[in-house]
Amino acid sequence: MKKMEVGILGATGMVGQRFVSLLENHPWFKLAWMAASDKSAGKSYAEACQWRLRSPMPDAVRTMLVNECKPPGAPQLVFASLDSKVATDVEKQFARAGHVVVSNSSSHRMEPDVPLLIPEVNPDHLALVRAQRRERAWQGMIVTNPNCTTVGLAMSLAPLEAAFGVEKVLMTSMQAVSGAGYPGLPTLDIFGNVIPYIAGEEEKVEAETKKLLGKLAGGRIQPAACAVSAHCNRVLVEDGHTESISVSLRRRATERELIEAWRAYHSVPQEKQLPTAPAHPLVVREEAARPQVKLDVSTERGMATVIGRLRPCAVLQFKYTALSHNTIRGAAGAALLNAELMKAEGYLD
Amino acid sequence: MKKMEVGILGATGMVGQRFVSLLENHPWFKLAWMAASDKSAGKSYAEACQWRLRSPMPDAVRTMLVNECKPPGAPQLVFASLDSKVATDVEKQFARAGHVVVSNSSSHRMEPDVPLLIPEVNPDHLALVRAQRRERAWQGMIVTNPNCTTVGLAMSLAPLEAAFGVEKVLMTSMQAVSGAGYPGLPTLDIFGNVIPYIAGEEEKVEAETKKLLGKLAGGRIQPAACAVSAHCNRVLVEDGHTESISVSLRRRATERELIEAWRAYHSVPQEKQLPTAPAHPLVVREEAARPQVKLDVSTERGMATVIGRLRPCAVLQFKYTALSHNTIRGAAGAALLNAELMKAEGYLD
Amino acid sequence: MKKMEVGILGATGMVGQRFVSLLENHPWFKLAWMAASDKSAGKSYAEACQWRLRSPMPDAVRTMLVNECKPPGAPQLVFASLDSKVATDVEKQFARAGHVVVSNSSSHRMEPDVPLLIPEVNPDHLALVRAQRRERAWQGMIVTNPNCTTVGLAMSLAPLEAAFGVEKVLMTSMQAVSGAGYPGLPTLDIFGNVIPYIAGEEEKVEAETKKLLGKLAGGRIQPAACAVSAHCNRVLVEDGHTESISVSLRRRATERELIEAWRAYHSVPQEKQLPTAPAHPLVVREEAARPQVKLDVSTERGMATVIGRLRPCAVLQFKYTALSHNTIRGAAGAALLNAELMKAEGYLD
Amino acid sequence: MKKMEVGILGATGMVGQRFVSLLENHPWFKLAWMAASDKSAGKSYAEACQWRLRSPMPDAVRTMLVNECKPPGAPQLVFASLDSKVATDVEKQFARAGHVVVSNSSSHRMEPDVPLLIPEVNPDHLALVRAQRRERAWQGMIVTNPNCTTVGLAMSLAPLEAAFGVEKVLMTSMQAVSGAGYPGLPTLDIFGNVIPYIAGEEEKVEAETKKLLGKLAGGRIQPAACAVSAHCNRVLVEDGHTESISVSLRRRATERELIEAWRAYHSVPQEKQLPTAPAHPLVVREEAARPQVKLDVSTERGMATVIGRLRPCAVLQFKYTALSHNTIRGAAGAALLNAELMKAEGYLD
Repeated sequence: MKKMEVGILGATGMVGQRFVSLLENHPWFKLAWMAASDKSAGKSYAEACQWRLRSPMPDAVRTMLVNECKPPGAPQLVFASLDSKVATDVEKQFARAGHVVVSNSSSHRMEPDVPLLIPEVNPDHLALVRAQRRERAWQGMIVTNPNCTTVGLAMSLAPLEAAFGVEKVLMTSMQAVSGAGYPGLPTLDIFGNVIPYIAGEEEKVEAETKKLLGKLAGGRIQPAACAVSAHCNRVLVEDGHTESISVSLRRRATERELIEAWRAYHSVPQEKQLPTAPAHPLVVREEAARPQVKLDVSTERGMATVIGRLRPCAVLQFKYTALSHNTIRGAAGAALLNAELMKAEGYLD
Repeated sequence: MKKMEVGILGATGMVGQRFVSLLENHPWFKLAWMAASDKSAGKSYAEACQWRLRSPMPDAVRTMLVNECKPPGAPQLVFASLDSKVATDVEKQFARAGHVVVSNSSSHRMEPDVPLLIPEVNPDHLALVRAQRRERAWQGMIVTNPNCTTVGLAMSLAPLEAAFGVEKVLMTSMQAVSGAGYPGLPTLDIFGNVIPYIAGEEEKVEAETKKLLGKLAGGRIQPAACAVSAHCNRVLVEDGHTESISVSLRRRATERELIEAWRAYHSVPQEKQLPTAPAHPLVVREEAARPQVKLDVSTERGMATVIGRLRPCAVLQFKYTALSHNTIRGAAGAALLNAELMKAEGYLD
Repeated sequence: MKKMEVGILGATGMVGQRFVSLLENHPWFKLAWMAASDKSAGKSYAEACQWRLRSPMPDAVRTMLVNECKPPGAPQLVFASLDSKVATDVEKQFARAGHVVVSNSSSHRMEPDVPLLIPEVNPDHLALVRAQRRERAWQGMIVTNPNCTTVGLAMSLAPLEAAFGVEKVLMTSMQAVSGAGYPGLPTLDIFGNVIPYIAGEEEKVEAETKKLLGKLAGGRIQPAACAVSAHCNRVLVEDGHTESISVSLRRRATERELIEAWRAYHSVPQEKQLPTAPAHPLVVREEAARPQVKLDVSTERGMATVIGRLRPCAVLQFKYTALSHNTIRGAAGAALLNAELMKAEGYLD
Repeated sequence: MKKMEVGILGATGMVGQRFVSLLENHPWFKLAWMAASDKSAGKSYAEACQWRLRSPMPDAVRTMLVNECKPPGAPQLVFASLDSKVATDVEKQFARAGHVVVSNSSSHRMEPDVPLLIPEVNPDHLALVRAQRRERAWQGMIVTNPNCTTVGLAMSLAPLEAAFGVEKVLMTSMQAVSGAGYPGLPTLDIFGNVIPYIAGEEEKVEAETKKLLGKLAGGRIQPAACAVSAHCNRVLVEDGHTESISVSLRRRATERELIEAWRAYHSVPQEKQLPTAPAHPLVVREEAARPQVKLDVSTERGMATVIGRLRPCAVLQFKYTALSHNTIRGAAGAALLNAELMKAEGYLD
């Protein structure tokens, strides 16, 4: 099979670097084009990018030219990890010019005709692009993945919603520094500290979770009827968002049933064996003090959500801890899996 | 006024060091005796103690003899910060021998005739020592302060309970490393990590909060009827427990009323101007990203609980963040304030 | 005595904040004016400044207006902690307009007619301002303090130079993050890392040390004849530069003689009891593992250099460790002590 | 080829865990036996070991029995990473009982008839075991690798010694926390700190470097005649020792010649393609701020020493920075490579 050429908008940022890293040796896609902000455009990737991943910059991209964020020359499929300030316009411009924009930005996630997608959770929402094409008269399209904090929550809730119905969920996050991009948090701000506020984050988590667990009907998403409340905190961790979650379900369930629902959970990405799909999207650890960022964040190459500490909650019904890798499962890996789903479902033909 | 001589059981540990530090220049108490584990006994304090506070070891204690944890020679009033494994027996032994044991250990906190005390919250519970004396036929007594994680929660709830009634509370903690004592957490365990489990901590927070907010009637504490659920996590912070709290109240209230209730809160320690009492036990910050450990943990010399981020909660009614200093307000400072209350109320005569 | 009004150029940065903090309650100086970059000018200090010190922003400065960095309206004495890029011109402009600029910037330190001053080390170099006035025909003047890494090295060498002559010195620094200002180092760069390079730092340390230990003769500084080599590294510490130093002396000396030379060292600031002067500019600790940032950085309110681990060196003659507080003794405290010396010596009349 | 069965003494510690990890899928050796302290003996490895590596514990070892540290039942070849306190006797006991002990402990490194070996640096020293067998009348033998801090220094010096002769070397280390084992450093000791002392470390580095660079003649090692001085510091890094090194050579050389000597360096392990050998034992980076722990510690799977920042030194001749992975190249990987060399050279037949 000839690989499909793909591009990256925002290739030099933290998520852009993850795209570059995940696309190295990808069986379906070949990185052929990249763009970044004006101050990077015209340079080679090695010059333009302050590489921050522990694995080295792939040799193949070192001399690749960084383009301006403009459609001419870009391949049909572009992954986008631009700042939301610029993403709104640039992504529309690319979609209008006929490109499929698989975006990690928050700009269009909550628009009624834009799929907000976790391939394991709501693969059918992808059909929303028909409304998008119809209403916007675009040749291309925009498909989004959720905020890095939403992902672990929504993935852990999806099997519960399916089996028992989720009524209420209260989540407190302890989020990694890489979620703020690069340069991101000054050391003097976060060292020895917890910052109990991330602008806009709680609102995103609350709204996105309901859209993700919602139902597609009549070409629109009916958000799930559950109550969702989020407390978002930043802690001194490099990669990996830990979430303390309490939940009430609509139907009675035992702890064992929840664990079984999580462990049995699999969906389209597993069935179609998408290249980036984790074999087990939800991994349950039953030891006393897991999941831990240090030990569990790279489970299934960072594509699984790891769950532990399930126990009764005196206020809601159950409580547990979930962990996911914020720049892989919560960003670049999420978008890549979205593109793989689109490819497998014929949206990229 | 001649100062009252006091002792410390467990003087070499992290909380013991805080006792030593807080008793330096105390206007009412004079540190005259100290004891620690057998491997320290017989040494000078400077030899026995691995001092870990940023302020230097007071010169006056360097040559002080570390005794065995046995009553003979100890002053009437002893502060205790022993491991709970040994505290159970040692504290009883001292109380039986006529000593007033003001303890930071969890061993006796939940016993029905032992006061679990925050002087601002439930000063009247101190009267429980009468039951203790009657039933145990001790000359001395044991009075306790809560777990370091309970303190900030209970202090923030007390004005709400008084003004509006607390129905449900869900708290997720991000706890400092010093709470685990010294040597405590290995660097290799917590560096770059969040540990989502602290043995026994959640149970303590849930039970102690209800006892603290309970009513003394007929010589017994009737625990508060609220539901309390805790998620306890360890993060890489030196001193200061941050708590994300959601709460439902029994009576309608506005955000402004909650803030006023917190700001107006004062109690016996403030009225009697106890030396260690904070002028403002609850400090509310209205900036977007406060309280922060780094900026706020030492508010009122570490004796205040700092509250911020009050906002509506989609699952319960309100959510907010509270911060308190775990080895001062949550341990040594708590016990010291308990002793000051006892002195002011005539329990030490 | 009426306090002298002073200003700060660069009041919102990390060193500027230290100036604000150290000037609160200063017995001789009163902060009456401040300036910062154009984006801060016109705001109140509370609005313009992202305060990062653990002690709270003094109330008196919260509403103070932040001015543009232009002389009109500024008091005679201004402390300067501007980026060296802008400092070169701005400082000259103020000196030309008649102001005494006591600067922490590197811009003019190595100019032949500008005093580079540590009051304990080379107070006589202050006389160099006469050459400055003569040659530049300025009403004002510029006086500088050394780089934060030079300070601990030069202070530890000064008594050795005086007593035995310093021939060669090789220093490896482990420098704190605050030395890079705010926002300074991204967390993603330094967390779990050592960065073995700080642009321009080694050259500054090597040149400044020789100027500081040099002799004033004929209105010029003859740099010390010693060889100085520096390795500069950044580590994950908030405040406090640790230096591993090896040294060869010109005259034979014993370890005990070095310790005595350090302990006996005192100079003009101690004799004149300047308000910011440490009682002991050099503190020697003889325990095995000192000085440590955590335990020793605040010795003498951050104004002492703490020395330990003196032992023979197999390549040079002796080796030892020195620690100093980089934003106090190495920056704002250094400049403040310079101004106090100038006041005491009649340079501000 | 049938794999050779091997054992581990001290399998539960940090270095023991690295042995377990590196032996998984090793082409020549098969882990068949393990032992640890008495409190672990009799348990399964999963029960006995607090696994701290980021890669998960290999499934094959989870149920493996942890034995007492006694020869019966152990395979011929055992890797040893015991505390030096117990290593002295246990290793001798195993050697006497006919086992080949490939040890990471410091106990026997400096004994005249024990090879202290870096396969790239002094492979010929292995012949020393003949003296060992002759003099001790053992069936087995003890072969050692150097201290984790010595490795990077000695590897960087070996090509310089060969090409130009090393006269003097002064090294300041910034060492990772994992070097102190597990539990190792309490968080409260090292967080926000630099500890300028590691007991015994400087003496080891100085003596071992001279033995490693020494010549085998007449069945004895003649230590190299260079002067070596070390400053050893602990910093908050997980894995990876950074070293600031100054050196004087006996023959004139240019910076370019040094870089070429490092880059061209290869030795027996590379020629014989030993499985654990790095293709490039010395990797030179010419960017301004490299090597960095975060970016470079895993170069060549942690088996290379990465060198950077070569520049003139005003006191000695050259200065540079070297980095190596302390628990791989500096411990378990070092011993494993030693065993591979022994196998390739016929010492294990």
